[in-house]
Amino acid sequence: MNILKVALIQQSCVNNHRENIENSCQRIFQAAAQGAELVILQELHSSHYFCQTEDIANFDQAENIPGETTLRFATLAKKLGIVLVISLFEKRMPGIYHNTAVVLEKDGNIAGTYQKMHIPDDPGYHEKFYFTPGDLGFNPITTSVGKLGVMVCWDQWYPEAARLMALAGAEVLIYPTAIGYDPTDNPQEQQRQLAAWIVVQQGHAIANGIPVVAVNRVGFEADPSETTSGIIFWGNSFVVGCQGEILGQASANKEELLCVNINLDQSEKVRQIWPFFRDRRIDQYQEILKRFRD
Amino acid sequence: MNILKVALIQQSCVNNHRENIENSCQRIFQAAAQGAELVILQELHSSHYFCQTEDIANFDQAENIPGETTLRFATLAKKLGIVLVISLFEKRMPGIYHNTAVVLEKDGNIAGTYQKMHIPDDPGYHEKFYFTPGDLGFNPITTSVGKLGVMVCWDQWYPEAARLMALAGAEVLIYPTAIGYDPTDNPQEQQRQLAAWIVVQQGHAIANGIPVVAVNRVGFEADPSETTSGIIFWGNSFVVGCQGEILGQASANKEELLCVNINLDQSEKVRQIWPFFRDRRIDQYQEILKRFRD
Repeated sequence: MNILKVALIQQSCVNNHRENIENSCQRIFQAAAQGAELVILQELHSSHYFCQTEDIANFDQAENIPGETTLRFATLAKKLGIVLVISLFEKRMPGIYHNTAVVLEKDGNIAGTYQKMHIPDDPGYHEKFYFTPGDLGFNPITTSVGKLGVMVCWDQWYPEAARLMALAGAEVLIYPTAIGYDPTDNPQEQQRQLAAWIVVQQGHAIANGIPVVAVNRVGFEADPSETTSGIIFWGNSFVVGCQGEILGQASANKEELLCVNINLDQSEKVRQIWPFFRDRRIDQYQEILKRFRD
Repeated sequence: MNILKVALIQQSCVNNHRENIENSCQRIFQAAAQGAELVILQELHSSHYFCQTEDIANFDQAENIPGETTLRFATLAKKLGIVLVISLFEKRMPGIYHNTAVVLEKDGNIAGTYQKMHIPDDPGYHEKFYFTPGDLGFNPITTSVGKLGVMVCWDQWYPEAARLMALAGAEVLIYPTAIGYDPTDNPQEQQRQLAAWIVVQQGHAIANGIPVVAVNRVGFEADPSETTSGIIFWGNSFVVGCQGEILGQASANKEELLCVNINLDQSEKVRQIWPFFRDRRIDQYQEILKRFRD
């Protein structure tokens, strides 16, 4: 059996770049000690989720790839012999910034990068101010542990993105994430949102016969502008198998290192009993390329 | 509030066309008496699920649309002043047969038809032998109770189909269905399959901010050829709201009339807080039209 041991690192962040990175590195050490071959950090793990406000000063946090943070984690990936997925605020050039995932190979090289393609903009999540939408497309990154369908957060709500990754041979979908409750929503709405976040990704697993990993931030972060009541990042990082079954799930309110075994052979078996790819009506999907069918 | 009262009729079928239709009609009367404006029957409700075997004699069951069964139900829709979704084995011409849903308007006219687009073929579900894949596309049917995104069974596993219906203005997705357990699968596998069937459709609701209705057959039907152990149709007909939340769900093993109120105004509100349609990367989805991205 082709078992991949994956570690999800669910963190709270403080307003200190170095401290967040030290915290990540400690947990990566622990993950490797537990035998993880693939370690995944959450979205923008080196800082507070700065997109709660539109503040030009935050662009100073952006960095080149490769740059200092990439090199720090690449060195660690090589030292520990792991594949590592990190998430950075990328400065591509002055005026073009991306929300970028970087996949680091066991030898310390960059296996590939993914620039967040779908960019949200909601109260508390002003990402369109900071991030240029990615132009690298939906392409899996080939690594020594498999072809990784790495995307980022808001992408996880889009069936098209999951499908494109699966069609290109991705063996697992991976979503570093930063999502949480609005403290002013009632508990029923909070519960509906959390459930929907999990279910829509289980749906991608099922529709594509592919395991899915989501790694989310945890803990409360205030809105520096005090416009909103801040965000309670809801944790619940999880792994589902290719029938959507839960293989592992973290808590809603604690930092956690979650190690889960994924059987990469299972996809092929499930796609044989549920042959969805065989029957796609590609002759009839053209209008999915439209904004609206009017 | 724009509330639509929907009735789902979950039936067991016998090997007698007339008896099945009488059973459906009785329950449609009950549904109307309870105030339902939209009544939905399961897939191929007039017969056993004959696709368990490939038997040329079964083509004799196919009928034209409109034909005797259409007229029978159209008369009832008019009498009760309801919109009615029925599912027929359509004979389009000798040699072209479809698995077709027909939507009947309150005035007894045909509002529209949908020919099943994705056709399965698995042990116990030999649909490719009987049904020509539909060529009418994914188009909602306009009725007096709203634009109905009617599809059929296997379509429910395809995010593309749900998306196309939503993009064309569907206000609710509707899936007449015939799915069940293989009695020889272990209980864990049976449970995973049932859960996946529900979750993948909840995923369509969430990704598109649209309510979803699935109406499934119930009860055991033997395989006439005795090749397999037959199918235990798993019922569990359900309605979910546009955040994927369960609004109503029938049992796994009983005939049921399930009436559920759907608030059709909710979609617009949810699409404002979760603006997925705003951010679709239609410039980057072209390869979804490929069989495989190689």
